[in-house]
Amino acid sequence: MAEELGESLVGAIETGGTKVVCAVGTGPGGSLRARVSFPTGGEPERLLDRVAEWLLAQEREHGRLAAIGVASFGPVDLDPASRTYGYITSTPKEGWRQTDLLGGLRRRLGERPMGFDTDVNAAALGEWVWGGAQGLADFLYLTIGTGIGGGGMVGGALMHGLLHPEMGHMLLPRLPGDDFPGVCPFHGACWEGLCTGPAIEARTGVRAEALAADHPVWEMETRYIAFALANLIYSLSPRRILIGGSVRKAGQYGEARFFAALRRHVQAALNHYLDSPALGVGIEEYLVAPTLGDDAGVCGAIALAQRALGEGGSKLRRGESGRVVEI
Amino acid sequence: MAEELGESLVGAIETGGTKVVCAVGTGPGGSLRARVSFPTGGEPERLLDRVAEWLLAQEREHGRLAAIGVASFGPVDLDPASRTYGYITSTPKEGWRQTDLLGGLRRRLGERPMGFDTDVNAAALGEWVWGGAQGLADFLYLTIGTGIGGGGMVGGALMHGLLHPEMGHMLLPRLPGDDFPGVCPFHGACWEGLCTGPAIEARTGVRAEALAADHPVWEMETRYIAFALANLIYSLSPRRILIGGSVRKAGQYGEARFFAALRRHVQAALNHYLDSPALGVGIEEYLVAPTLGDDAGVCGAIALAQRALGEGGSKLRRGESGRVVEI
Repeated sequence: MAEELGESLVGAIETGGTKVVCAVGTGPGGSLRARVSFPTGGEPERLLDRVAEWLLAQEREHGRLAAIGVASFGPVDLDPASRTYGYITSTPKEGWRQTDLLGGLRRRLGERPMGFDTDVNAAALGEWVWGGAQGLADFLYLTIGTGIGGGGMVGGALMHGLLHPEMGHMLLPRLPGDDFPGVCPFHGACWEGLCTGPAIEARTGVRAEALAADHPVWEMETRYIAFALANLIYSLSPRRILIGGSVRKAGQYGEARFFAALRRHVQAALNHYLDSPALGVGIEEYLVAPTLGDDAGVCGAIALAQRALGEGGSKLRRGESGRVVEI
Repeated sequence: MAEELGESLVGAIETGGTKVVCAVGTGPGGSLRARVSFPTGGEPERLLDRVAEWLLAQEREHGRLAAIGVASFGPVDLDPASRTYGYITSTPKEGWRQTDLLGGLRRRLGERPMGFDTDVNAAALGEWVWGGAQGLADFLYLTIGTGIGGGGMVGGALMHGLLHPEMGHMLLPRLPGDDFPGVCPFHGACWEGLCTGPAIEARTGVRAEALAADHPVWEMETRYIAFALANLIYSLSPRRILIGGSVRKAGQYGEARFFAALRRHVQAALNHYLDSPALGVGIEEYLVAPTLGDDAGVCGAIALAQRALGEGGSKLRRGESGRVVEI
């Protein structure tokens, strides 16, 4: 299926809180012709200059970029009918509030088809077209790192809505005896306030990467994340959950132990209420790391660009059994 | 738009934990030609006999029922490719475990198009076709009564997935000092364990309808429900949330005060993190009771039947701005 998709050479931009990754290509791996990253910084105009300059240089070398895909940290305005479509809106990030990202790129790159979505929806799309979510009409992609974000598909469509999901701010039960106030400036001990890299560091005084493998905080963090995953499973009934971001790598504790603990705690939280083999014997294929790893976002931006051309899986729809079929 | 839809006379069945409502009609209100309800009881075969007998009698009186829509309590199997499609599966309800609901009806009513979904998705569909969710591609319908259920649409499609949403089992933060253990046999103090009618009665010793208007439990219940709504808003970004079921009527406290408290507590829980007028000045149109009231489910079953005929909004799709357009 993937072979038929995404044949056009396109440009991809993934804006993150600390760096912006740009690429040109037709897909992941060897299909990624060139990539670069720039520090995000606090001056959007300057950053957009550098991004556009690099993309135009690639175009001279590799040929016409048929479209541009932009995967952005949020909140962003995804409503094409809105006056501020393509903007980063109310972000706390210094200098970036009310930034016309898409307009700024269009002014520099000229009129061409542009795809735009959240970084997590883009990563979800990348995994759906080329990675670990192929064939699934309902799944979630989460990232747990400096912040927590979530996106995915429901019924074969990327999740949008009134704004877009902001799953990281979910409110969770507290573990008995835990009175850590959390680090979220809005909600204190919401999911993001408890489980990001900065939250782990604030709680322990040590960066997550440097925490001892037997530090009790790993057990605690995986339990909190499991509460959030149980809530997402109850709310959305995804067919798979992909978890990217740095926290899942879990430093000395290690990614394998992190996922093993997470799967055990999710099953404990659900307590056999949901009757599906996927949540029982199949849990190792249900809660997984992204196949594209840290490239999910930038590959997703390629897929967004290809969708803007009518490629990138945009002609795929959900079949009767929830599998994806071509129409 | 509604005028063009749903012109066929169909049969509707809404199975609930205590009663089963049947109707024949073409839509809500005056378009509901006849209705009846039976106690659900513990013998599915006997109940299906009564339902089929009543529908066939209506058919003799009103004319051919072109299709049947079934809206059921769950968990149910919604996967048309599954061997147990149309079954009520692992319900704790006495006598109903592994009941072939759709097959039992087909054997009694003969082959005809049948629509099938959860009671809450059906109610959501009813509200979408005729009620308070018209024109919305992303919204939730919740019922808070003997249990808590949730359904709705994402991207213009009813929410399905691995199984179907079971939002009532979401895990929530506890209010300081509250050590009520909750009534959910699976999770104790999950949302359903804290906020259903039986939970209110277990906590206070008094049925919700009989609780004094100034009982502090109303404040507590609306705060817990608001935590769950905030989590659903973060996870799904719905454009509106409809809340049906008996608890929202709130006895002597009253529905108006219940919704006012809920709106206030949702805003407090979100703490201005999401930047949308719908969650600010527009909150009174955002968190609302169903327009079809207690008829949402049975009207939804009519719409499910009409969808099985290619009517009932099945040809409507989401337009660019998230509004629903005809294609």
